[in-house]
Amino acid sequence: MVADEVKAICRDIRALKIQGAREIAKAAVQALGIQARKSKAKKPSEFVAELIEAADALAATRPTEPMLRNSLRNSVRHVFVQLRKNRAASVAQLKAVVAREEAGYFKNVEAALHSIAEYGAKEIPQGATVLTHCHSSTVMAVLKRAHELGKGIEVIACETRPKLQGHITVKELRDAGVPVTLIVDSAMGSFIRDAHVAIVGADAISATGDLYNKVGTSLLALVARRAGVPFYSAAELHKFDPLTMWGVMETIEERAADEVASGSEFRGVEVRNPAFDITPAEHIHAYITEMGVIPPQGLLSFVRNAFPVENPFAAFLEERGR
Amino acid sequence: MVADEVKAICRDIRALKIQGAREIAKAAVQALGIQARKSKAKKPSEFVAELIEAADALAATRPTEPMLRNSLRNSVRHVFVQLRKNRAASVAQLKAVVAREEAGYFKNVEAALHSIAEYGAKEIPQGATVLTHCHSSTVMAVLKRAHELGKGIEVIACETRPKLQGHITVKELRDAGVPVTLIVDSAMGSFIRDAHVAIVGADAISATGDLYNKVGTSLLALVARRAGVPFYSAAELHKFDPLTMWGVMETIEERAADEVASGSEFRGVEVRNPAFDITPAEHIHAYITEMGVIPPQGLLSFVRNAFPVENPFAAFLEERGR
Amino acid sequence: MVADEVKAICRDIRALKIQGAREIAKAAVQALGIQARKSKAKKPSEFVAELIEAADALAATRPTEPMLRNSLRNSVRHVFVQLRKNRAASVAQLKAVVAREEAGYFKNVEAALHSIAEYGAKEIPQGATVLTHCHSSTVMAVLKRAHELGKGIEVIACETRPKLQGHITVKELRDAGVPVTLIVDSAMGSFIRDAHVAIVGADAISATGDLYNKVGTSLLALVARRAGVPFYSAAELHKFDPLTMWGVMETIEERAADEVASGSEFRGVEVRNPAFDITPAEHIHAYITEMGVIPPQGLLSFVRNAFPVENPFAAFLEERGR
Amino acid sequence: MVADEVKAICRDIRALKIQGAREIAKAAVQALGIQARKSKAKKPSEFVAELIEAADALAATRPTEPMLRNSLRNSVRHVFVQLRKNRAASVAQLKAVVAREEAGYFKNVEAALHSIAEYGAKEIPQGATVLTHCHSSTVMAVLKRAHELGKGIEVIACETRPKLQGHITVKELRDAGVPVTLIVDSAMGSFIRDAHVAIVGADAISATGDLYNKVGTSLLALVARRAGVPFYSAAELHKFDPLTMWGVMETIEERAADEVASGSEFRGVEVRNPAFDITPAEHIHAYITEMGVIPPQGLLSFVRNAFPVENPFAAFLEERGR
Amino acid sequence: MVADEVKAICRDIRALKIQGAREIAKAAVQALGIQARKSKAKKPSEFVAELIEAADALAATRPTEPMLRNSLRNSVRHVFVQLRKNRAASVAQLKAVVAREEAGYFKNVEAALHSIAEYGAKEIPQGATVLTHCHSSTVMAVLKRAHELGKGIEVIACETRPKLQGHITVKELRDAGVPVTLIVDSAMGSFIRDAHVAIVGADAISATGDLYNKVGTSLLALVARRAGVPFYSAAELHKFDPLTMWGVMETIEERAADEVASGSEFRGVEVRNPAFDITPAEHIHAYITEMGVIPPQGLLSFVRNAFPVENPFAAFLEERGR
Amino acid sequence: MVADEVKAICRDIRALKIQGAREIAKAAVQALGIQARKSKAKKPSEFVAELIEAADALAATRPTEPMLRNSLRNSVRHVFVQLRKNRAASVAQLKAVVAREEAGYFKNVEAALHSIAEYGAKEIPQGATVLTHCHSSTVMAVLKRAHELGKGIEVIACETRPKLQGHITVKELRDAGVPVTLIVDSAMGSFIRDAHVAIVGADAISATGDLYNKVGTSLLALVARRAGVPFYSAAELHKFDPLTMWGVMETIEERAADEVASGSEFRGVEVRNPAFDITPAEHIHAYITEMGVIPPQGLLSFVRNAFPVENPFAAFLEERGR
Repeated sequence: MVADEVKAICRDIRALKIQGAREIAKAAVQALGIQARKSKAKKPSEFVAELIEAADALAATRPTEPMLRNSLRNSVRHVFVQLRKNRAASVAQLKAVVAREEAGYFKNVEAALHSIAEYGAKEIPQGATVLTHCHSSTVMAVLKRAHELGKGIEVIACETRPKLQGHITVKELRDAGVPVTLIVDSAMGSFIRDAHVAIVGADAISATGDLYNKVGTSLLALVARRAGVPFYSAAELHKFDPLTMWGVMETIEERAADEVASGSEFRGVEVRNPAFDITPAEHIHAYITEMGVIPPQGLLSFVRNAFPVENPFAAFLEERGR
Repeated sequence: MVADEVKAICRDIRALKIQGAREIAKAAVQALGIQARKSKAKKPSEFVAELIEAADALAATRPTEPMLRNSLRNSVRHVFVQLRKNRAASVAQLKAVVAREEAGYFKNVEAALHSIAEYGAKEIPQGATVLTHCHSSTVMAVLKRAHELGKGIEVIACETRPKLQGHITVKELRDAGVPVTLIVDSAMGSFIRDAHVAIVGADAISATGDLYNKVGTSLLALVARRAGVPFYSAAELHKFDPLTMWGVMETIEERAADEVASGSEFRGVEVRNPAFDITPAEHIHAYITEMGVIPPQGLLSFVRNAFPVENPFAAFLEERGR
Repeated sequence: MVADEVKAICRDIRALKIQGAREIAKAAVQALGIQARKSKAKKPSEFVAELIEAADALAATRPTEPMLRNSLRNSVRHVFVQLRKNRAASVAQLKAVVAREEAGYFKNVEAALHSIAEYGAKEIPQGATVLTHCHSSTVMAVLKRAHELGKGIEVIACETRPKLQGHITVKELRDAGVPVTLIVDSAMGSFIRDAHVAIVGADAISATGDLYNKVGTSLLALVARRAGVPFYSAAELHKFDPLTMWGVMETIEERAADEVASGSEFRGVEVRNPAFDITPAEHIHAYITEMGVIPPQGLLSFVRNAFPVENPFAAFLEERGR
Repeated sequence: MVADEVKAICRDIRALKIQGAREIAKAAVQALGIQARKSKAKKPSEFVAELIEAADALAATRPTEPMLRNSLRNSVRHVFVQLRKNRAASVAQLKAVVAREEAGYFKNVEAALHSIAEYGAKEIPQGATVLTHCHSSTVMAVLKRAHELGKGIEVIACETRPKLQGHITVKELRDAGVPVTLIVDSAMGSFIRDAHVAIVGADAISATGDLYNKVGTSLLALVARRAGVPFYSAAELHKFDPLTMWGVMETIEERAADEVASGSEFRGVEVRNPAFDITPAEHIHAYITEMGVIPPQGLLSFVRNAFPVENPFAAFLEERGR
Repeated sequence: MVADEVKAICRDIRALKIQGAREIAKAAVQALGIQARKSKAKKPSEFVAELIEAADALAATRPTEPMLRNSLRNSVRHVFVQLRKNRAASVAQLKAVVAREEAGYFKNVEAALHSIAEYGAKEIPQGATVLTHCHSSTVMAVLKRAHELGKGIEVIACETRPKLQGHITVKELRDAGVPVTLIVDSAMGSFIRDAHVAIVGADAISATGDLYNKVGTSLLALVARRAGVPFYSAAELHKFDPLTMWGVMETIEERAADEVASGSEFRGVEVRNPAFDITPAEHIHAYITEMGVIPPQGLLSFVRNAFPVENPFAAFLEERGR
Repeated sequence: MVADEVKAICRDIRALKIQGAREIAKAAVQALGIQARKSKAKKPSEFVAELIEAADALAATRPTEPMLRNSLRNSVRHVFVQLRKNRAASVAQLKAVVAREEAGYFKNVEAALHSIAEYGAKEIPQGATVLTHCHSSTVMAVLKRAHELGKGIEVIACETRPKLQGHITVKELRDAGVPVTLIVDSAMGSFIRDAHVAIVGADAISATGDLYNKVGTSLLALVARRAGVPFYSAAELHKFDPLTMWGVMETIEERAADEVASGSEFRGVEVRNPAFDITPAEHIHAYITEMGVIPPQGLLSFVRNAFPVENPFAAFLEERGR
């Protein structure tokens, strides 16, 4: 039985009250912790079934969030690992595993963000103007760290229609003391020659190193390429979607039309509102990850190398199917 | 003395009550006609001085409008031509010249629009999906004509931030019975593969065939090029700016910040709002003009060829200086 | 009444017994001459009506042959010119006009071929290897002239499926003493690095300088561009299709499926057999014409400049409509 | 002494009676099994010498077949492994090793094909049109699996001169119920805009991720790139040629001239008939392998990672030299 | 008989004592004037024969100088024009023609330079950094004029091996008060992102708009294109080589090896020293000419349009042959 | 206390008496050996402190030399490894470790060079013309080995301003019997079509596979890419700079102005003299390393894979900080 608090968190994610790949993943892992703590299961098998049900519900809230799925998988997997080691493990012992993983997860996420900020800040040249799109907490961390290091950066941010997340970006940077300029999305081509670096976040990364991110990202990468400006994505390795290795393509979520235009005056007009687009690996200079700066075509081998003991994805597929 | 009606028209152009290169040019030529009719000048020299003053005031309303300047130049030039033929021409005779030119101008502008619609509609393949940006009356004419001819077209239009002229486009086409889809500007890259043709209007065309048009146009041309989709600009030859032949560069008008974002919450945030961008000739398949479909690099020779008797631009420069 | 000999020529063109843009155009002009000679018309108006009927029949034999249409137009137009000069011209006088134009046409076509051979041969560097596709009499003339001039050229020819016109090319060149190599079409990319020049003929040239030629031509231009090898089309100016200026697009003729594959074993398999493809102007270094070597984007102005007295195409459109 | 059956298989491979990288490799492994079973060797050293002689003969049948070489190497290597473990192994024991490896090989090849079909089918979007070249059993498996999954695909296949393997492709797909269209090779550029995916097999893959495949493949990849259509190669990891890591370049096999043109009419005409061409890694979206979808530049690290215990290629080089 | 002073000028041109296309052309026209003044010919035919002999000698001094040939042609042609008008013209009258043409030529050359400076200066944005190569008097004129207009430009100049003409450029600009930076040629790629415009002169321009200029120019154009920096050539229309229309290719002059490396230590080392390279039209934003800013592909039509009365080149070819 | 001999070696490196990444690294490792041998330290901690001081001094001699830093790190690290194993190790034992590492280092460097020569020579096609820039001992080894193998190669070398290291290249190859041609750097674009391969050395390689090498290298890679000529860098894996994984960017060393131009005549002229430029991974076909031919985007994973036991770079960072 999925706990009410978990259901509430599912609703909040769906309603965009919880936003951003990292925040969603954190909320989901936390929800799994709540599920475990609140569980009244008597038998381990019952406990596990509930946990999987909760994980399923959480994973289903957003179609394009590998970080969410990877994070949930990790928590659930450790319960299985524990059961494999000790077939007689009690519910209490399994609850402890979930709690431990939850705590570890939060620590790791923070550490990853810290490393990305550090490596990314070093990549930004002294006195650089940086062009960004949408709002990404990893990008914010990188830019603020560069600012702290006295790099004297300036930032140009696209407003990012239809939800105008660029407004959050400019205000947050202004509050941090970074000189910042706001432009409409279609002006990115006009300002790229003023920029030295372009940097965005990531919703998902595929096996071929392609980037799924806020619609408009692929345009920014394209104009950056043409102007000789390096284009980066700052992303935790959890953004890598292992399923894309096995041919599963990320869904491009299409959001409600009324985010773009609404009212009776638009009757008879179709409105299309894809949330993401795909930036090909060849337009991406590098991913800035918690393990370092990695070229997109090398990411797949890198991720597999980073988890050498067993293939976690295969395990996941086997356990959870799809 | 510039007539009050002329001053009012200047104000309306500045306030964007009169919009679109063609509408502005028509209003300016009409204003010159009013100026002539209302003139109380006794001497031809006085009449001419007033006319030039009015033309100057009208030309100064918008920095990037060669059609406006070309149209005014044409009207004024015929007064000079008349004086050269007949040094003793009376004020009444000169008024008649202006009136005749005004009438001729309106006829020519309509004829040009008709030809562009006809040629452009033929260029659009049967059953094509067309991607457009902003709102352009030449593009509207082309698309409606294609629809009338039973080509079964569909149109995808970018909303065109910050002023959302794409809304006018989708409503006008819907009312004409054309299936139409509205997208945010940054989604143009996501829909270009669904399109068979991209087509926009023009604010100005330079000697090298580069296109000055609504900001975002160069992005559309770029993604169209990458997807193998032909990109057209539908434009009267009056959009060609002869001054660019002599090294004068078109100004990229920067409009008010509050069109993009306003309010105290943006204090400390710079907002940049360029109205146009430049699409290089190499990304433009052709200009659709009233004299035919012309490759951008051939436009300069074509325009000069189309006016073979004398170089009207040199005459203009000589008479009006700059 | 269309003469039986004219009808026979129409049939021969349709059945590909007469092949190649130049041969077809020559046959059609000759057919018009026969029509005139054989005419039993009593009144000039009757004579003209027959002539137009014959021209219509001939023009309809092939969808993508501007040279055919341009050549027919020219002959018919001079009859109208004569009538305009002398409204009382007799049938005999009109017959004389057609006969004179026929003779002049053949002379001009030969002279054009001679000039193209001369200019083209000069463009080919000493000791060059030339890659060509299909069989073109202008290309043959250029290559043989280069050989005669002692340039020591070698030629690689694609076989050109489905009709294998490349076989004609290699035999004709071999007989002329030129070292020649035959390859399958899909090997053009493998041999382009061995070539110094690529050269093909033309079926039609559009206002934007795009080339309509045997399917596979656009592939050759693409690989040539990537390898830094200049790509030429050797073409009479009559290959320029004036209708494309007014938005009319050349038809890509689709020929019979059984040229590609036939027999019951292919039941249920669709076979597509487009005869031409379109090479974009940007991949063409130059057109080698009877008036010189011309960049594709400059061709439109050049053609219009070459016929300065009146716009022959406008006249044609007016007289013949479409 | 090489068994007569092995010699017969060598002849069949040379005569193209056995075709396709996988079929050739399977036949060779089977031949090695026959060689072992038929061997009358008394001493292990004699047995091994014969086995190597047979492997040499089989490897020499085709110059560009890493799958053949990799497969033979694998079988022979296990005999050495056995000898290293047990220096006193009998001929019977060695025969058992070969038999076991043979059986395992066939199972693995089938499993690999199944995985490629599964992953590849997922990569193909719903309702996609797929463009392919030549005939490849991995591609066939992918396309049939996509069809089975109800993806509603359509396929366009190039005929693939000179041997017209495209005919096999269209018939096989038609029989499987897939709507299929046949075109000449040089029309691939004309149909690429109708396609959503391009997919081919592989003869060999180099250390840099370049693809050696049927001549014409590089053209397809090039036009796909220009049209924004993802280009895949479906290939077992055995297609990777380890020797290319050490600077050895794959040979481009040149086949008999009379496959292209024959007869006395071609006397004096050189005919060139390269069997393969090289598609650069940058034009390949991904390899679809039995271990997943892998970007070409990441393949080298991936393959090495997939065999972590020892470097099988180094062992092979050492044992077999070159 | 060619005058001794003319022979001396020929020697000076060959020895590079007279350098730069304009200086050479001016010296040659002056030499023709001297030849005419010094002539002791009694009969007009004798006078003309001498003049042609002198023009031939002067034209032969440099292989790649259309301005030299165009200028000589012009002077000689007017003598023929005079003879055509008045078959009985005296030697004295012909001498007067040459003298008049000489004076007119110098005036025109100065006027052209002035116009180029004016148009070019306007093309350079306020505060721009300009990258240039070699030493060109038209480029110097443009840059100094931009400086005079208070544009606040800075210039980066390549040293231009082997003759280091970049040293002349930096000193001349420094003396004019322009901030200037000197770099080695191979560093042009490192500084292009700091530049807003690249501008060079021209030795010759072909019918297809390709630029023949100092070796290294094509590299500058290439890096400029990649960085989105517009690349200009400032050139008089006399740099256009009409012979290239008829297939004649400009020679790439190869200069003495010892300009690059000399001495016995280089025995056995071949040294190649081409003076020019070819920049393709597609990499050139525009030519800045005395008649305006012209896209390269439009230059041919423009030049022909600029001389509408008769085709001067055809006349030249006819009179002088080649 | 840093030994005087070590200080002398530092001076020699700074003064370019010792040149080339490999020579510098070898000198530094040798210096470390001298430091160890000469050390009068009584306590291990004192010995280690001296060794680190010497390593710091040596590492500081050149800003862009990862091979130097990697080599020093390696030697020092083994001392720590020894101390970790045996906390009571004596100074004599530590001296032995340094001596052993020094000897091993020299052997490994030679072996690496040998492998690179072997693999690289195989990559060069029979009869190839090779274009190179600057002087690189790995490239020399590759070219000489190809020559030894009877490949019949020819080499074109850029002179490489300002220090003209190309002179060393041409003399060394000439002495080895290789036909060699010298050109100025800016002529590389003119000769690339004559070349079949371009190959250079490496100063540093970044995590994204970008190449830091002598200024002008990126131009060569660019023209090679455009001409379809594969571009290689022959480099030991020690050229890979692990710090770039963590965002640290390689410094582009700027050398003395007077290498380019000197003397009072250049007063007021700024001279810029960057020693290196950056060639993007996408322009590099492969790195030829001692472990094989590796695509640039795969290098990071490869290097990490090649040192699987522990991450040597992390250890280095930890031990030496930064």
